[in-house]
Amino acid sequence: MSQTLSVPALQDRVEAILRRAGMNDVQSTALARVITAGERDGCKSHGIYRIEGSLRTLKAGKVRGDARPEIAASTSRGIVRVDARGGFSNPAFDMGLPLLAERARELGLAALVVNDCTHFAALWPEVEAITDHGLAGLVMCPSYASVAPTGGKSPLLGTNPIAFGWPRPGQPPYVFDFATSVVARGEIELHRRAGQPLPEGWAIDADGQPTTDPAAALAGAMLPFGGHKGSAIGTMIELLAGVMIGDLTSPEVLDILGATTLAPMHGELILALSPAAFAAGRRGDPFARAERLFEAIKGQGARLPSERRFAARARALSEGVTLTEAEAEQLDRLLARGLDAVD
Amino acid sequence: MSQTLSVPALQDRVEAILRRAGMNDVQSTALARVITAGERDGCKSHGIYRIEGSLRTLKAGKVRGDARPEIAASTSRGIVRVDARGGFSNPAFDMGLPLLAERARELGLAALVVNDCTHFAALWPEVEAITDHGLAGLVMCPSYASVAPTGGKSPLLGTNPIAFGWPRPGQPPYVFDFATSVVARGEIELHRRAGQPLPEGWAIDADGQPTTDPAAALAGAMLPFGGHKGSAIGTMIELLAGVMIGDLTSPEVLDILGATTLAPMHGELILALSPAAFAAGRRGDPFARAERLFEAIKGQGARLPSERRFAARARALSEGVTLTEAEAEQLDRLLARGLDAVD
Repeated sequence: MSQTLSVPALQDRVEAILRRAGMNDVQSTALARVITAGERDGCKSHGIYRIEGSLRTLKAGKVRGDARPEIAASTSRGIVRVDARGGFSNPAFDMGLPLLAERARELGLAALVVNDCTHFAALWPEVEAITDHGLAGLVMCPSYASVAPTGGKSPLLGTNPIAFGWPRPGQPPYVFDFATSVVARGEIELHRRAGQPLPEGWAIDADGQPTTDPAAALAGAMLPFGGHKGSAIGTMIELLAGVMIGDLTSPEVLDILGATTLAPMHGELILALSPAAFAAGRRGDPFARAERLFEAIKGQGARLPSERRFAARARALSEGVTLTEAEAEQLDRLLARGLDAVD
Repeated sequence: MSQTLSVPALQDRVEAILRRAGMNDVQSTALARVITAGERDGCKSHGIYRIEGSLRTLKAGKVRGDARPEIAASTSRGIVRVDARGGFSNPAFDMGLPLLAERARELGLAALVVNDCTHFAALWPEVEAITDHGLAGLVMCPSYASVAPTGGKSPLLGTNPIAFGWPRPGQPPYVFDFATSVVARGEIELHRRAGQPLPEGWAIDADGQPTTDPAAALAGAMLPFGGHKGSAIGTMIELLAGVMIGDLTSPEVLDILGATTLAPMHGELILALSPAAFAAGRRGDPFARAERLFEAIKGQGARLPSERRFAARARALSEGVTLTEAEAEQLDRLLARGLDAVD
C-alpha cells in the first residue's frame, strides 16, 4: 500500500535511517534535508533512491559518517574555505554559506571552496540557498571519469554538473542545474535495464566508435553535451573545481575510488555574486529587469528551467509526498538493518 | 597581387585607417590590436573584415570614436568598473585590466565590469590578457536578440559569447571562446550567399518551425547550442552580463539599435580568479596538475581549443600575414576615403 507523508515527516524518517547507519548529527541532518528535497521536488533520481548509495559509500569506508566540517584558514578575503574532513559535501556547504554570503555582500563577489568531500547530491539545493541571501550563485564540481572529451575516445572528464541561480523576490528563484554530459550516467543504465537502444550521440564504445548499445556505452564513454562547447565547459570545471582548488579531478577520483558505483570524492567551487553591488550606481533595478526577461521567455511559450520542480514542491508541501509500497518497505528495511541492508 | 606584411606593420596600417576615420588614440590603438590579432591568428571573421563594420557603426553615430574610458566609482572592493563612455569595449578593458589583476591577487577573485561600450571583437584577446597575469579568466557578454530560447519561437537571447582562459607557463594558455548559439549569425549569412541549405537544428523560421532555409532563418531565429542547456547558459549571460551589471540585455540592444548590421552596445562581465590563491595550503601545484589534464586530453587524440589559432599565430609572427589583392586594395581604399568608404 502506498504511503503519504508530510515533507517534515519524511525528512525525520530519512534522518533516522542515516543515524541508524552510524552518521553523526551534522552529516545526517544535512543529507536528510537534500534527499528529502529531491523527493519533495519530484526529482526521484536525487530522492530516497540515493540513500542506499550513500550507505554503500559509508560501508566501503569511502566517506566518514562521523566527520565534522570546519572552516579552514584562507589568506584571501574573497575565498571562504571549508574542509569537509572526508564527510559529505552538504554539511560543509551549510557551514560555509553564511560567511560566503557576508563576503559576497562586502566585496561584490566571493567564492566558497569545499575540499575533501564526498558528493552525491544535486547542486540546486546549494544555488537555491545562495539565492535565499539575495545573491546569484554559480556552482560546479567534477565527478569521476566517464565522459570522453570531443575528438577523444575514452573516459576522462566527469559528468561535471554546473548550476546557476538568480533570486526572484517573492517566488522561487531562476535555477538551472545540469550535467555537462549529454545525459547522466543513470539514464544509460536505465536503458540497459529496459533493453532499449540509446539515442545517437550519447556515447561511444570502448574503441571510441559511436554506439547505441547501452552495455557498450557503459564499457566505453559518454559524450559531452553540445559537442566541443560542452567538452570545453567540462574541462573548465576540472580546472576550476578540481585543479585550482587543490582537489581531485575526475580521472584522479576514478583512480582512487576504483568504481563508479560509489559517491565520488572531490571538491566543489561555489561562487556568489551580489546583484545589488554590481548594479550599484546604474539605471534600473536588476531584480525587476530580470523579471521582464523571464516574462519575455515565458511569453513566447518557452519554460524556465526548474518550473516543473517548483510545481512538484508546491504540491508536496500542501499534500505531502507519496511513497510506493516498495519505497516505504525499503525505508523500513534500511531503518531496521542499518548498514547490513546494503552490500 | 597578394601582399605580405609583418604583424606590427599590419597593426600600424589598421590603426592609421581607424585614425583617418576619426577615432582618437585610445580607441584606434586598442581596436587595431584586436583586429590585427584576429588576422594574425587566422580568425578571418574577427580580422580586417571587421574594420568596415566598426566604421559603419561610427558613421551611424552608434559609437563614439573620441571616447576616453574612465575607471568608475565602485563601493565594492571585488568589483572594478570601467565606463567605456560610449566607445568600444577594448580600450575600456585595457584600462581596467591592471586593477582587476591586482584585486584578484589580493582577494582570490575579482570582477571587471565594462559599461556603456560597443562590442565587436572576439573575447579571447581578453581572456588571454588575463592569463598573462597568471590568472584564470571567464568573460561573457550579451549581443542582440537573434536566438530563441529552447521551446520558444522568436529572437530574444543574443548569441552571447562566453570565453575562458587558464594560464600555461611557457606556452599559450588554454582558451575557449564560443557563441551560445549553435553557430554565429555570420555562418547563416554565408550559407544564404552561397545558396546552400543550413544543417538541421541551427534555426527556426518566423513561425517558430525548424528550417534549413537561410533566408527563413534570418527572418526567424537561431537556436542555442546544446538544447535547453545552452539556452540556460545564454539566459545566465543576459542576467549576469546584462541585468546584474546594470547594462543592456540583448532584446534591449536590438530595440535601441534597430539593426543587426551595426556592432551591439552593452556591457561586459569579466571574472579573474587566482589559482595560486585558491590552491594555497593544498597539495600539488595547480599549473603542473593542469598540464597533466591537458596531456591526457591530447593523449587520446582530442584537440585543445585554440590550438589551430596558436599555430596560425606562430606562423604569422615568423612569416608575416598575407593579404589577398582584394584585401590590400580594401585597406588602401579605407585609408584614402575614411568614413566615405562605408555606407
